[in-house]
Amino acid sequence: MTISTDLAYADRLDAQDDLGHFRDRFMIAEDELIYMDGNSLGRLPMAATELATDMIHQQWGTRLIRSWNEGWFTAPERIGAKIAHLIGAHEDEVIVAESTSINLFKLVMAALRLQSGRAHILTDDLNFPSDLYILQGVIELLDKQHQLEIMPSADGVYGPVSALQARLSEQTALLTLSHTVFKSGYLYDMAALTAAAHDAGSLVLWDLSHSVGAVPVDLHAANADLAIGCTYKYLNGGPGAPAFLYVRRDLQEKLLNPLSGWMGQRDLFDFKLDYQPAPGLRRFLTGTPPMMSLALIEPGVELLLEAGIDKLRAKSLRQSNYLIQLWQRELEPLGFTLKTPREAQQRGSHVSLGHQEGLRIDLALINDMQVLPDFRAPDNIRLGITPLYTTYRDIYQTVLRLKAIVTERLYEKYSTDAPIVT
Amino acid sequence: MTISTDLAYADRLDAQDDLGHFRDRFMIAEDELIYMDGNSLGRLPMAATELATDMIHQQWGTRLIRSWNEGWFTAPERIGAKIAHLIGAHEDEVIVAESTSINLFKLVMAALRLQSGRAHILTDDLNFPSDLYILQGVIELLDKQHQLEIMPSADGVYGPVSALQARLSEQTALLTLSHTVFKSGYLYDMAALTAAAHDAGSLVLWDLSHSVGAVPVDLHAANADLAIGCTYKYLNGGPGAPAFLYVRRDLQEKLLNPLSGWMGQRDLFDFKLDYQPAPGLRRFLTGTPPMMSLALIEPGVELLLEAGIDKLRAKSLRQSNYLIQLWQRELEPLGFTLKTPREAQQRGSHVSLGHQEGLRIDLALINDMQVLPDFRAPDNIRLGITPLYTTYRDIYQTVLRLKAIVTERLYEKYSTDAPIVT
Repeated sequence: MTISTDLAYADRLDAQDDLGHFRDRFMIAEDELIYMDGNSLGRLPMAATELATDMIHQQWGTRLIRSWNEGWFTAPERIGAKIAHLIGAHEDEVIVAESTSINLFKLVMAALRLQSGRAHILTDDLNFPSDLYILQGVIELLDKQHQLEIMPSADGVYGPVSALQARLSEQTALLTLSHTVFKSGYLYDMAALTAAAHDAGSLVLWDLSHSVGAVPVDLHAANADLAIGCTYKYLNGGPGAPAFLYVRRDLQEKLLNPLSGWMGQRDLFDFKLDYQPAPGLRRFLTGTPPMMSLALIEPGVELLLEAGIDKLRAKSLRQSNYLIQLWQRELEPLGFTLKTPREAQQRGSHVSLGHQEGLRIDLALINDMQVLPDFRAPDNIRLGITPLYTTYRDIYQTVLRLKAIVTERLYEKYSTDAPIVT
Repeated sequence: MTISTDLAYADRLDAQDDLGHFRDRFMIAEDELIYMDGNSLGRLPMAATELATDMIHQQWGTRLIRSWNEGWFTAPERIGAKIAHLIGAHEDEVIVAESTSINLFKLVMAALRLQSGRAHILTDDLNFPSDLYILQGVIELLDKQHQLEIMPSADGVYGPVSALQARLSEQTALLTLSHTVFKSGYLYDMAALTAAAHDAGSLVLWDLSHSVGAVPVDLHAANADLAIGCTYKYLNGGPGAPAFLYVRRDLQEKLLNPLSGWMGQRDLFDFKLDYQPAPGLRRFLTGTPPMMSLALIEPGVELLLEAGIDKLRAKSLRQSNYLIQLWQRELEPLGFTLKTPREAQQRGSHVSLGHQEGLRIDLALINDMQVLPDFRAPDNIRLGITPLYTTYRDIYQTVLRLKAIVTERLYEKYSTDAPIVT
């Protein structure tokens, strides 16, 4: 194949793509920009621009305090119910609240209290550092018996499945893992790990931040206990938009939120001095939700529901397979390594490429090549595939530009001291 | 005075008001609406509408992930520094993060760890129930020795100052109070209570939610240790906008955030597995901030700085005095009680009126009279004075309409089962 043939091939794939029209539902301000970072901050849905105007002028500016009774109070459940459809949960099992980190703290602390007599939290070193930091904070607050066990991945790509399974014991209170691993894109077998944990009497908490909206998740099929996740990545909810949490129905009344806040109080306007947790998931709310950021989650979720998560997954895998094929032909000979599983069922929706000049290549890609990936130390160039708007042409051109950066040594002008974008 | 004379008098006061022009800097969508709830949700600054458009189209829609390096990462400190000027703090002593409740949890837990050997938290029953709920949650997480002591107010209006002072002991780890009390508007003498607590070796945490932007606060003059506060009331930051926290410089490196999150990590993009707190106030950040809600705080704070907090306080007191005079003449004979201190130096920026038919009067005021106050059980009609946009005419008409509701028995059609707005 020649390059021109290849470009035509990419365009033909785009032309045949029955999800391709969803790209028009997003703001594409710079036609020439190739955005490969939707797994970090999703693009702006056009419907969110209209909603933002309504939120500002009508809901805040005009209705003022009345808006709390006109949809704001119930927004955490309403949007949670929509997210539930993406992750195989009942509508009353998901609620939007605070941030992923804060929600992790709430659920881990609640789980440890329920699991009295068991003092270990089990995880792996592929988990988000942000999650590990929260887990360390939880351990600090508890008595000396509590421990955090971090199983190492052998290669930094694949989850240490058998080590985790071997480590589960009558001491394990909670197994918590990132379902799709943020660096390598490795995808855990949720059902298998959950079953193994349950066999040992442990609860399981899944961080779905890199799965929700990208990978079909079936919390019920896996009988998962707890989950958290982010809304600003594949859900396109906007920068730093509040996160969600899932608690299986039968656990909801057994768990208590350690961050016992007014929004989780049973009778909000009685102003009683004693905290009484609300029934159901509302008890896991704490503070007043940031409504501008919260409301704007809804349009992105609706786009995903409209497209259908199974179709999105199928396209995502076609696109990541395409990217891996191009890597093999164009980039592997130039020293790029594949840091993502080749097996489709073990892969989320991004592909990480390593290179000994990874950071400088990343900088050249951003500054000279109109491609926005992201970078994860030490040398991962992370390419996010967001099938609602990523085109085959985007992928093809990204590969070609990576190739040019190395063959033409365009990275050499960059220093490794440059700041890194999230 | 006749009523027409009175209205002319109110209008004359407005005409003489050198802050009156600030009302034009806010969206006033319904001219006929009298908004007396700016102490619960501040109005929309016009500058925030422009900023919201920029945030949506330019910062999120166009710049995408790049915006994190173009102002988003530093927004918590940048906006915190502006708030610092309203509360007598250094710029590097205030940061915007999460919600008031979450920030309270962080600082209380951090303070208790620093005060090992002391196990009591002291507060009063005039404090926000939301704060008491968080304090209860903190106590639940700690060992059995820790206690929450809630001093009762004798009359529900004035803070139990001498009871608090008498209760301070070598067991008191932390005294925490709401500087302006949410029901009665009672204003604590921050310097006196802080000094008394320090004499006993206790730390002090002030909740400034009903003071910031309404009352001059001088944390340094009082040598206050810790503070938290809300941005969506007098700061006009938008519904549920993130809160702020203050930690005096010399305490910053001594305190550790129990909600140890990625945003508070020393080297954000090293992705090390061990949490290392950032120097200074950033360690008190936890999750990724909700940028839409966070960014929109800034225009409201800038308006307050432009007007000047001392001038705002002077107007607020003139207006609350005016309201109290009108109450005495028009409403006291109808059974309305004043539930706010008459002494100006003991009063924040709202006035609470009680009545045995309080809730039904409140409902008539909202539904029939185009006045939006708020209501706090059991019978408080709370009238917020927000001198950036409250007019003397607003106050005069509110009083007249309250009078009409009672004299014409307009409240009788309402049930006390109606829902209540925050």
